[in-house]
Amino acid sequence: MGGLAVGIDIGGTRVKLGWVEQSGRLLTRSEIATPVTATPAAVARAIAAAAGQLSAGDPPGGSPALPDRIGIGCAGLIDRRAGVVRTSPNLPTWREVPLAELVGRELGRPVHLLNDATAFVLAEAQLGAGRGSSPVVGLTLGTGVGGGIAAEGNIMGGARGFAGEIGHMSIAHDGPPCPCGNRGCLELYVGRRGIVAEYLRRAPWEPGTSAYERAGGDRRALSPRLLAAAAQDGETAAREAFAASGRMLGVGLANLANLLDPQLFVIGGGIAQAGDLILEPARRTLRERAMASGGEAVPVRPAALGVDAGLIGAGLHALSSGAAEVSS
Amino acid sequence: MGGLAVGIDIGGTRVKLGWVEQSGRLLTRSEIATPVTATPAAVARAIAAAAGQLSAGDPPGGSPALPDRIGIGCAGLIDRRAGVVRTSPNLPTWREVPLAELVGRELGRPVHLLNDATAFVLAEAQLGAGRGSSPVVGLTLGTGVGGGIAAEGNIMGGARGFAGEIGHMSIAHDGPPCPCGNRGCLELYVGRRGIVAEYLRRAPWEPGTSAYERAGGDRRALSPRLLAAAAQDGETAAREAFAASGRMLGVGLANLANLLDPQLFVIGGGIAQAGDLILEPARRTLRERAMASGGEAVPVRPAALGVDAGLIGAGLHALSSGAAEVSS
Repeated sequence: MGGLAVGIDIGGTRVKLGWVEQSGRLLTRSEIATPVTATPAAVARAIAAAAGQLSAGDPPGGSPALPDRIGIGCAGLIDRRAGVVRTSPNLPTWREVPLAELVGRELGRPVHLLNDATAFVLAEAQLGAGRGSSPVVGLTLGTGVGGGIAAEGNIMGGARGFAGEIGHMSIAHDGPPCPCGNRGCLELYVGRRGIVAEYLRRAPWEPGTSAYERAGGDRRALSPRLLAAAAQDGETAAREAFAASGRMLGVGLANLANLLDPQLFVIGGGIAQAGDLILEPARRTLRERAMASGGEAVPVRPAALGVDAGLIGAGLHALSSGAAEVSS
Repeated sequence: MGGLAVGIDIGGTRVKLGWVEQSGRLLTRSEIATPVTATPAAVARAIAAAAGQLSAGDPPGGSPALPDRIGIGCAGLIDRRAGVVRTSPNLPTWREVPLAELVGRELGRPVHLLNDATAFVLAEAQLGAGRGSSPVVGLTLGTGVGGGIAAEGNIMGGARGFAGEIGHMSIAHDGPPCPCGNRGCLELYVGRRGIVAEYLRRAPWEPGTSAYERAGGDRRALSPRLLAAAAQDGETAAREAFAASGRMLGVGLANLANLLDPQLFVIGGGIAQAGDLILEPARRTLRERAMASGGEAVPVRPAALGVDAGLIGAGLHALSSGAAEVSS
């Protein structure tokens, strides 16, 4: 079990990289800006160069010091088996990009690609808040809402590796249209835009209120983080916005409880940092709506591994995928 | 693999029993009326007696001719590990009934209890329409809507064996209340009452229309089967009722596709006999709403094993559970 992998997490603004031990410990770590407008080949080169430089002092790319196992987590629709990014909100011009092959060629090593929320759930299920529980259903609440299902520490990928799109479960069949093509998706209510919209629906939006002052009067500066601070300041509309989103989250969790009977829910992503502002209303709705509860509602826990969970999960995925098949 | 089990399927009106081979073949089969108002102990005695009599000519109960493995499928909330019926729509006065133990004591053999829709999915995934596919998501459309998820032919039970309550996935967070405590559950739109309600919302309900004549003018006689016949007669409101329910089914299937990425959906239960009246609108909505479709929507197939799928699945469950632990 003493393997070592490079874990890479491609986010909307930063690419995080690190050497990951099987235990989840990060040995070394770095970040580069996400080259959002670069071509796939240029992105692959930038990632490979950064990965090579992680082993400070050794020659980059193909260095014997670089671990054999490389895992990349990326938001979007990821064909895990083929190592292809079908589409990604973080790299909006990409279509069907064989990222695993592109990076693998640069590094002379097989690269294992997976969805970033899947990587998060893998790490939290094996080493974080979900350790020892099975199945674990994990959600990441951010600009979008991602997720995954782990059983006995392994991700359920489904037939093609697309399973876990929890943010695109409709809880309002005739609700507002979602960019994904569906309507009333959970992400519309629980993601960043949903919380901001819930706030603006309730707020007077005038000088003297906490969120207004914190945003300098600029609505575009509103974010879940800013609204969480306003809620801590005691602004009612901000508290209510989180409560409304939390209730919608609870509707989604009740559906997942009825479908999957998880032993535990793990909630991560930036919005989860609002903590009980959003999680308490979610727990209450879960208890009210899920079957089989009888006082034994599924626990809802915040993620334990912090901002590096995706990075660690990408490394764990590479370690469990092995290095047998070389893609170059 | 040459085992033999007794499969038992407790339905709302009939209890079906049969000897089931590992191949799914039924060697012998019988039915008794469901003793809906009897005490749990009396129901257990009736079931055990009928099971014993399956081996015609041999002494019932404990006869060496009776297979060692006994499986029972029952609608409702079933604690599979404990062998307990928590609640069942078919046996409305039951609460926390240890049915496996009660029947097991009568027969002198361990009895394995599971949800009836779970049994259906197990049989269809191993031997029916889902054979060779994984994961398979199955739904039974009847008075209620049940379901299950099978991976590599095995049922995903979840932490406590309650997984698969597909009928109680909310697709309308502010929809009508469901007896389960949730709102806007799929079952409300796709089950028997939903289809009848969709019909009555559209129909003039007057002499000369097919459904009215077939029902003898009695609304209470309306059923999905009768409405399917009226639709075949060409009555528009009946066709539209199935189309409306089919679209809601498609909303549910799109959610399940996004969450679980199944290789195949299998649809059974009485309402599925309406065939493409309900399945075609469901397939269309699934294609429109599911992510990752790109022309490759998950196939939706009618069940292949007919009315005995639940019986066969209960037997298969007993065969795979083994006879090691004796419950008497």
